[in-house]
Amino acid sequence: MIVGIDLGGMSAKAACLENGKLTKIVRVETSAQASYAETAHALAVLAVRAAQEAGVGRDGIDAVGIGSPGIIDSGTGNVVLWSNFGWEDVPLAQSIAEELQKPVFVTNDANAAALGEAKYGAGKNYRNSILITLGTGVGGGIVIEGNLFEGYKSAGTEIGHMIIRQDGEMCTCGRRGCFERYASASALIRMTERAMRAHPESRLKEFVKEDGTAGGKTAFLAAAAGDLAGQDVVAEYIANLGEGIANLVNILRPEAVLIGGGVSNEGENLLRPLRAYVYPRLYAPVRYAPFEILRATLGNDAGLYGAAEYARSRIL
Amino acid sequence: MIVGIDLGGMSAKAACLENGKLTKIVRVETSAQASYAETAHALAVLAVRAAQEAGVGRDGIDAVGIGSPGIIDSGTGNVVLWSNFGWEDVPLAQSIAEELQKPVFVTNDANAAALGEAKYGAGKNYRNSILITLGTGVGGGIVIEGNLFEGYKSAGTEIGHMIIRQDGEMCTCGRRGCFERYASASALIRMTERAMRAHPESRLKEFVKEDGTAGGKTAFLAAAAGDLAGQDVVAEYIANLGEGIANLVNILRPEAVLIGGGVSNEGENLLRPLRAYVYPRLYAPVRYAPFEILRATLGNDAGLYGAAEYARSRIL
Repeated sequence: MIVGIDLGGMSAKAACLENGKLTKIVRVETSAQASYAETAHALAVLAVRAAQEAGVGRDGIDAVGIGSPGIIDSGTGNVVLWSNFGWEDVPLAQSIAEELQKPVFVTNDANAAALGEAKYGAGKNYRNSILITLGTGVGGGIVIEGNLFEGYKSAGTEIGHMIIRQDGEMCTCGRRGCFERYASASALIRMTERAMRAHPESRLKEFVKEDGTAGGKTAFLAAAAGDLAGQDVVAEYIANLGEGIANLVNILRPEAVLIGGGVSNEGENLLRPLRAYVYPRLYAPVRYAPFEILRATLGNDAGLYGAAEYARSRIL
Repeated sequence: MIVGIDLGGMSAKAACLENGKLTKIVRVETSAQASYAETAHALAVLAVRAAQEAGVGRDGIDAVGIGSPGIIDSGTGNVVLWSNFGWEDVPLAQSIAEELQKPVFVTNDANAAALGEAKYGAGKNYRNSILITLGTGVGGGIVIEGNLFEGYKSAGTEIGHMIIRQDGEMCTCGRRGCFERYASASALIRMTERAMRAHPESRLKEFVKEDGTAGGKTAFLAAAAGDLAGQDVVAEYIANLGEGIANLVNILRPEAVLIGGGVSNEGENLLRPLRAYVYPRLYAPVRYAPFEILRATLGNDAGLYGAAEYARSRIL
């Protein structure tokens, strides 16, 4: 049995991957206050619980895959840096492998989600796909010929930190004009707030959140109601997102880009104009190398699928 | 014996790859006026001549690799589109394979050069590298874990057509703000001409070409002579080039970027400030995942090395 673990700052989830489906998901709280040893032990216990829920015990575990935040050296299974938890070069794979006496593999959580979506979600009919997650930032992962691509020392696939506007808005990474400054859910909200200030007469204010501030849906709802300011925000957001996607497709030419994260809940209201924007901008035409933009389907489970699949691919 | 062929619009070159070195290079003229069948036949004859120069005959050929301009489907060996020669979906590998009764493989010429530099040139100590060629446009190729990366249907690695300035200068590809509009040799020359008009008092005019127009070296020579306008052009060019390189490294995280093409002749005058610009802008620090920017070393032979290497990798 292969166990997948999705490690986060508030909780960790685990489940087994059986016949292409997750077994019952088990959870444990995590905390930056816990020591590294405590957290590693809790993950080992969690893996055994997931195996038990799948009808086997520790002995029935063939391998454990973990998707972890931070910079991961997947060659060693070390978490090189996870600032939230103060982890610096901790041997996560080794610690859990020693406790369970089973092979353990670690990759970045965004990479795990990309692998999960590629193999079990929206990308399952394609061997080459990119997952783009539109949330607080823009995260992503790349699957090439069925395998997760991580870059040297697993330091690649930072697709949110590709600039699309030289000398543009300052990013947390220190560069100016990064894709995630223009295409994340946070960027969409900032753009909506700017439009609300510039166009107080618009209908944007009818679609704010309960606390009166703009949300990721505000502009899309106003646009659907015929509001011009809302339509302008949506068009600008789709252009920003579309330019970044066209860049990635020209460089990597996958068969599909899978859109996840909060903004993807807009579904076809987002995807239809996005396709219309991107397809004519690709260097090699779509009629020659077929290409799709699709909505991710696994939601929050993508990381669990991918963590398990990552371990499966490593013990093959 | 493996034969490499570098096909161009004016001539084709061929040589064998023996013990990591090219044997004597043979050439034939090519012309858009010739029929496809004539050109394919000429390449088959050229391959045999290259084998003869290497001391064997047609029977001594194990495989032929071809780097061709245009969009190539390397899975079939077809040239899908080479507008200069009016080729549309011609079965180049098959035509030559039937004539020689040997396996023949075709890839894009920029990809072949990247593979050649990666394996036999500046990248030979790295398993992951990107070649960036600064000429009329910005071309390139990507080698991952020792293998050429081509993208689905060989339609990837169009790195010159990644935008770095949204809504910027119009590119021949139809998008605005492409990397090659700001970082090619042509872009450097345009920037230099603009600076000459804006600063007629500068020393740029002392370093023009014989015909009185700016060349790729003009700004670098003026900068080295202490001219402020020249220094500004060089700094702006390096910032443009550096932003595109930082994008590619954040996405792909190779171990090395290899710089080829005319502008690379500036050597350390280009590379020293380029490294200083790029290294601090990488998302994962260089101290964690070592990374180098180096000058390509094989010059015009990179494509021949790579074409042969491509065939070698395909018959392994």
